[in-house]
Amino acid sequence: MAKQTLPPHQSWLPEANAPTADFPLTHLPYGAFATEGQQHLCVAIGSHLLDLHACAEADLLPSELKFACQSSTLNALLALGPIAWTQLRHTLTTLLEASAPNREKAEAALHSIAGATLLKPIDIPNYTDFYASIHHATRVGQLFRPDNPLLPNYKHIPIGYHGRASSIVVSGTPIQRPTGQTRPSTPDGTPDFQPTRSLDYELELALYIGQPNPLGTPIPISHAAHHIFGVSLLNDWSARDLQSWESQPLGPFLAKNFATTISPWITPLAALEPFRVPATPRPPDDPKPLPYLYSTADQAHGGLDVKLEVLLATHITRTNKLPPIVLSQSSTQDLYWTPAQLIAHHTSNGCNLAVGDILATGTISGSAEASAGCLLELTRNGAQPITLATGEVRTFLADGDEIILRGSCELPGHPRICLGECRATILPARS
Amino acid sequence: MAKQTLPPHQSWLPEANAPTADFPLTHLPYGAFATEGQQHLCVAIGSHLLDLHACAEADLLPSELKFACQSSTLNALLALGPIAWTQLRHTLTTLLEASAPNREKAEAALHSIAGATLLKPIDIPNYTDFYASIHHATRVGQLFRPDNPLLPNYKHIPIGYHGRASSIVVSGTPIQRPTGQTRPSTPDGTPDFQPTRSLDYELELALYIGQPNPLGTPIPISHAAHHIFGVSLLNDWSARDLQSWESQPLGPFLAKNFATTISPWITPLAALEPFRVPATPRPPDDPKPLPYLYSTADQAHGGLDVKLEVLLATHITRTNKLPPIVLSQSSTQDLYWTPAQLIAHHTSNGCNLAVGDILATGTISGSAEASAGCLLELTRNGAQPITLATGEVRTFLADGDEIILRGSCELPGHPRICLGECRATILPARS
Repeated sequence: MAKQTLPPHQSWLPEANAPTADFPLTHLPYGAFATEGQQHLCVAIGSHLLDLHACAEADLLPSELKFACQSSTLNALLALGPIAWTQLRHTLTTLLEASAPNREKAEAALHSIAGATLLKPIDIPNYTDFYASIHHATRVGQLFRPDNPLLPNYKHIPIGYHGRASSIVVSGTPIQRPTGQTRPSTPDGTPDFQPTRSLDYELELALYIGQPNPLGTPIPISHAAHHIFGVSLLNDWSARDLQSWESQPLGPFLAKNFATTISPWITPLAALEPFRVPATPRPPDDPKPLPYLYSTADQAHGGLDVKLEVLLATHITRTNKLPPIVLSQSSTQDLYWTPAQLIAHHTSNGCNLAVGDILATGTISGSAEASAGCLLELTRNGAQPITLATGEVRTFLADGDEIILRGSCELPGHPRICLGECRATILPARS
Repeated sequence: MAKQTLPPHQSWLPEANAPTADFPLTHLPYGAFATEGQQHLCVAIGSHLLDLHACAEADLLPSELKFACQSSTLNALLALGPIAWTQLRHTLTTLLEASAPNREKAEAALHSIAGATLLKPIDIPNYTDFYASIHHATRVGQLFRPDNPLLPNYKHIPIGYHGRASSIVVSGTPIQRPTGQTRPSTPDGTPDFQPTRSLDYELELALYIGQPNPLGTPIPISHAAHHIFGVSLLNDWSARDLQSWESQPLGPFLAKNFATTISPWITPLAALEPFRVPATPRPPDDPKPLPYLYSTADQAHGGLDVKLEVLLATHITRTNKLPPIVLSQSSTQDLYWTPAQLIAHHTSNGCNLAVGDILATGTISGSAEASAGCLLELTRNGAQPITLATGEVRTFLADGDEIILRGSCELPGHPRICLGECRATILPARS
């Protein structure tokens, strides 16, 4: 018997129903775009965006959501809480599905994504970066501590640190090669101050906090997932030579804080429900998470199944109109800690998360060497250059290189969804 | 011949002219207080505060500054830039000096500080913590790396990391003892998850950024001081047992981000002009700062001379009405890097600073052991408990302990100024 694989909801916008659509009706990620000198919120559907500001003006949205939908950023909507998020998602789904009574009004609020300038859709008060892929931690450890690659704390505690929120930019913003101090070539030598020679990307997933917690009040792991509004891709640009010189004893600083790129679309967690999976099983000898990091529900379906990919477009691929070159493929199932574990840990000491905060996973690398989510691993800190299909050789990124992060969720019987692409091109250092 | 030591400006408020006044007319630090359910900005004068919102309503302020002075935080005023800061300071000085024509109107806007609830006067978008006292870095290094206390990068690069902005609270807010993971007692053991047993304070100075820089545009050291609006004291609470377990390889995280306390008054840099001093001389064998960290003007008067003190009030001192016990005394001249060097370094890779950002110095410890600005140093990580004048013994802080940070500037011929006290009491861990 042929299996019925038609999605449960079809849109009146045919392109959204194509199996190749990134943004089917079941996705509806949030973004922002420039229109008539203003920044409007929107959702993506097919190859179009639906202007939420215009929908509010056309009385297509519940009155209690209008104010938040006419804001220039998502923060007001997030602050309304999960019931409002569900209500808006339901309203937008109804507006865009095949049987929608208000189709004409909604059509007037559609714009082509290709013709739009997408903007940063959210104010990010605080940015935390974790280190949640054990494969990444192990391979990076092997480079710098061959005898002791994985530190004793790793399997007990989700390692994280605070990143720089002010320099987070949206996909498409060029990234200037940063200048900084590098380790002297001799122990008594003077450091160089020069453009980084080892500019790297890091493939990460960003979790956006929608529900805050008051200072002093931890979020128990059983409630943690409810605090997540959605996710996007994130590129944590890193200057490895600066990082190696500056990071002891207090961690990365200028090696990271010159820029971090997020994708323009924030996928609501609700759209990822079909793609929730059990927490990645741990080897039997690994310690069980401490009670504050453990819940049966989180173990049963607290993981995410997002396939990830890093691509590189170079001067030669562009000139010859070749597709970008795949550098690696990995998955959020390569993470050692679930999103809920990251949140429970972050707040276990009473630290307060704010609406719009990002918790990023850290570089998502798989167990295979080819699945490493950064060049530090792929080229062993530059010691093993890689040769691209174009014949070009890379240890780290060259000026003009464009890095593209992609993420997708696929499951039989469900429309595929693709996270918004996260891309940026490297500009030469400031002269 | 008797030296004329009368200050150049006398206020019509006699208490402000007393040599013991913390807040003479030459100081005028900015704060905020609660009044009729609102938060108003104010400046301190003598033992009073002057309500800036009320001054604006009474037409005592230039019209172009009214809006910013009626805001609930200082951010709008800071965003107006240095000319506006100077204009407001001049206006307020004129309003409060002995010959003021509008004395009666200003008097109506005065409130006793003792009777007021002081609030956090500024939104702090980003918080960076440096490690700028070489004495602190050396003694902490001796505890954990006796053979190699000061790392090779220290004398070349102002070491810093990103702290947590969301958990910064104003002086007077109680601090709850945080709970967290601590190192297992055996290498194969399970970590404990318990209230910290080594809760510590850190004596620091906070620099408040008044002028932002765009992403990608470094602030040259020659302009760096102009980006500082003012300073306050800062206590970077630290849970040493959590820190020791979590900090490798990415630096402190939950050991610090449960709370940071700032004093309620922000002293404008203009008030500190008489107390600018040459950069602290370095031993002749130390490397000269790299060019981006060096300017002759900064070397000539880029330092600050603020005397600092940490005091402890305990259950016994309070019960017996004894004064708090002095734990240590140090000075901002104990710093290896100037404020301008911290700013020039932070932005050297193009990182953007925002209005209201804090750059903190890190623990300010002097060369003498008794001048150490935290208990980690004073008790050698708890190995050498200290006995207080009350007979009480401390390795780290006990519940009920109150830490008080003080700072003052003195110079013959100038009224002494005292930074606002930064105090907080430790509450037991959440049960």
